[in-house]
Amino acid sequence: MSEAAIAPNCLAGVKVLDLSQFEAGPTCTEALAQLGAEVVKVENPKGGEPGRILGTGPKPGADAYYFMIYNANKKSVTANLKSPRGVALVKEMAKKADVFIENMAPGTIEKLGLGWDVLHALNPRLIYAQVKGFGEGSPYEHNLAFDMIAQACGGNMAITGEVGGRPVRPGATLGDTGTGMLMTIAILASLYQRNATGTGRRLQVAMQDAQLNYTRGAFTNYARTGQPQERGRAGFGPPVPPNDIFPCKPGGPNDWCYIFNSHNNPEHWRRLCGIIGRPELADDPEYLDRDKRLARADEVNAMISAWTRQHTKHEVMQIIGAAGVPAGAVMDTGDLLAEPTFETRGIIQTQHHPAGDLRMPTFPVRFDGKPPAVTRAPLLGEHTETVFGDWLGMSAADVKGLKDDGVI
Amino acid sequence: MSEAAIAPNCLAGVKVLDLSQFEAGPTCTEALAQLGAEVVKVENPKGGEPGRILGTGPKPGADAYYFMIYNANKKSVTANLKSPRGVALVKEMAKKADVFIENMAPGTIEKLGLGWDVLHALNPRLIYAQVKGFGEGSPYEHNLAFDMIAQACGGNMAITGEVGGRPVRPGATLGDTGTGMLMTIAILASLYQRNATGTGRRLQVAMQDAQLNYTRGAFTNYARTGQPQERGRAGFGPPVPPNDIFPCKPGGPNDWCYIFNSHNNPEHWRRLCGIIGRPELADDPEYLDRDKRLARADEVNAMISAWTRQHTKHEVMQIIGAAGVPAGAVMDTGDLLAEPTFETRGIIQTQHHPAGDLRMPTFPVRFDGKPPAVTRAPLLGEHTETVFGDWLGMSAADVKGLKDDGVI
Repeated sequence: MSEAAIAPNCLAGVKVLDLSQFEAGPTCTEALAQLGAEVVKVENPKGGEPGRILGTGPKPGADAYYFMIYNANKKSVTANLKSPRGVALVKEMAKKADVFIENMAPGTIEKLGLGWDVLHALNPRLIYAQVKGFGEGSPYEHNLAFDMIAQACGGNMAITGEVGGRPVRPGATLGDTGTGMLMTIAILASLYQRNATGTGRRLQVAMQDAQLNYTRGAFTNYARTGQPQERGRAGFGPPVPPNDIFPCKPGGPNDWCYIFNSHNNPEHWRRLCGIIGRPELADDPEYLDRDKRLARADEVNAMISAWTRQHTKHEVMQIIGAAGVPAGAVMDTGDLLAEPTFETRGIIQTQHHPAGDLRMPTFPVRFDGKPPAVTRAPLLGEHTETVFGDWLGMSAADVKGLKDDGVI
Repeated sequence: MSEAAIAPNCLAGVKVLDLSQFEAGPTCTEALAQLGAEVVKVENPKGGEPGRILGTGPKPGADAYYFMIYNANKKSVTANLKSPRGVALVKEMAKKADVFIENMAPGTIEKLGLGWDVLHALNPRLIYAQVKGFGEGSPYEHNLAFDMIAQACGGNMAITGEVGGRPVRPGATLGDTGTGMLMTIAILASLYQRNATGTGRRLQVAMQDAQLNYTRGAFTNYARTGQPQERGRAGFGPPVPPNDIFPCKPGGPNDWCYIFNSHNNPEHWRRLCGIIGRPELADDPEYLDRDKRLARADEVNAMISAWTRQHTKHEVMQIIGAAGVPAGAVMDTGDLLAEPTFETRGIIQTQHHPAGDLRMPTFPVRFDGKPPAVTRAPLLGEHTETVFGDWLGMSAADVKGLKDDGVI
């Protein structure tokens, strides 16, 4: 464990029965695991959840990086859900669990005999959580969804892109992780409530619906104008310059720095004029006035660019930030991995895995000064014996019998 | 209250003392409020939190839509934090609260005499939450941040944009709301833990650090290639076509539909060939083979576009989705507001406010079938008398005295 990290143990004793796969469900249960819950993935004995082979990993034939990053801190057991005894095992586990979660295709979990009605009857304390692409009652209720489908249908793509350009898919996986985080909130609130009521709840989230939580700003623009928000126009009307990304030295694809000049704060403009060597414009009403500066947007942006091109993005951020003007270098994954304080602060940690290591972010909130420690993702079925022993009181011989019978 | 919504009451009895402003903090406390906590905003008696005047609202001079959308379901009291008696009032409230949250500029809350040490000593059960732009120990620890700065520095912009194009700011406010959701998770986990320990925790999140939680996929690409993820390349290598947005009738700015054709599932290709009237290509090895189809990307995309241009985005989504191939129309705010099931399912609700109404999304998880009900954002100081009465036992005369003295 990194010295910069701790085990926050907030959810010590909470048992999570995790039938989820890929990203929207696993990001939810990974957050629960990093906060201290015992998360047990139930996987197909033949190959495990499909995320294990999505892209390559540290070694040919080993688990993919994709799986490692979204399944840290969890345990894994196997159960063949095509076998009635495999399904019966999951029901026995559900009696002991606090939380159940799945994100299979619409209708699948019910066909397996593990629907809300069944598990709630077996364990009324169980919190039963489902992630789907579209909500019950939506015209697309039966459609499949992946991250990009949710981002298209949930409003993200329509507001992302260059002014006048086509819609763009955001690189961050809001369709998946964005949804997973909201389910984590709902589960934790329901766990808290259960301390008083003793009863679990049925929780459902649709990936499309979840996107609206992150694009709410566009709803205020609609209320103001009666029109959908245009791409490249996130704020309140056209951006008073400078309020954009500017090109930096040496001109590589990610050598850009965002500079935000609040039009409500004339000091921002004055400070910038000093930095770029144009002090004579600091109090010139042609530039100080918001509307006049907007009319000169091309000229102002060219003036700033002429200066930013002489400096690296890190220099631009440092010089302008130190002057009290908001500035942010466009950092790519390589920049983030190269910035040493992410490691000293515990935000980026190394997952040590038998197949090879992975440097990755942890859940980035600090608890009494330190973020949660990353422990490695489980190998397929690694915890079958210990979990079936702890949860169900099985002996090693019992587990071997199930394995011999092809149940696990 | 919409019949499609409920009060989930998960956090009944939880008192939140909310000194946050704009979006990153308020989205966190709004989620807590929608889940049943009593969230009390403490605002400057002169004008309130600055979000109240960010952009326009239903009426000139009334609260802005921006404020309404991020402060639904909360209460408001006033306290002048420049007055020692105002600060003393906040301390008295902190003794009664379960959660304290602020997102002021670095160092401000400590200068006010309301830092972690002070409030923890007054109320060891208090969960103390802080949102900043950059983390303690980061080289940018003292810098200001806004949403776009966090998105630039946290890796979002570098992976968003067209292939070969410049970085693009995502329209969804991941820098703000994305951070707020992670703090909500940390607060709820700490509340759960407090049931066992009786002690609160100090929670800190940086907006830059929070972005890494949503861009983790790019870290797996880095692990695979040793290079930052390229824009327009979210998956595992170049996308096998079709895996993009396609232009639809009648050609407006948001008339596009995403079509995702999994290269691991040859049925996707076969079904698409039938739909676009090219059944002869369904089993042609020149197109069925992943690498060969990739080499013909321009031809394949042109073929699909020729068909999608004849249909609206909704038709494309419906026809292709019904054939079991993932497809998602690019829906803008207007499309979402026009889709009637968002209202019948309770995901979009109307906030009824004295200044005028606002149609807006609620917290989009359903609890036993229904999402949380939206109630309106508070007017400035609307609950001063009731909250000071309930929390601190003050009389109406006490409150009037404080007002006359300029403390509230």
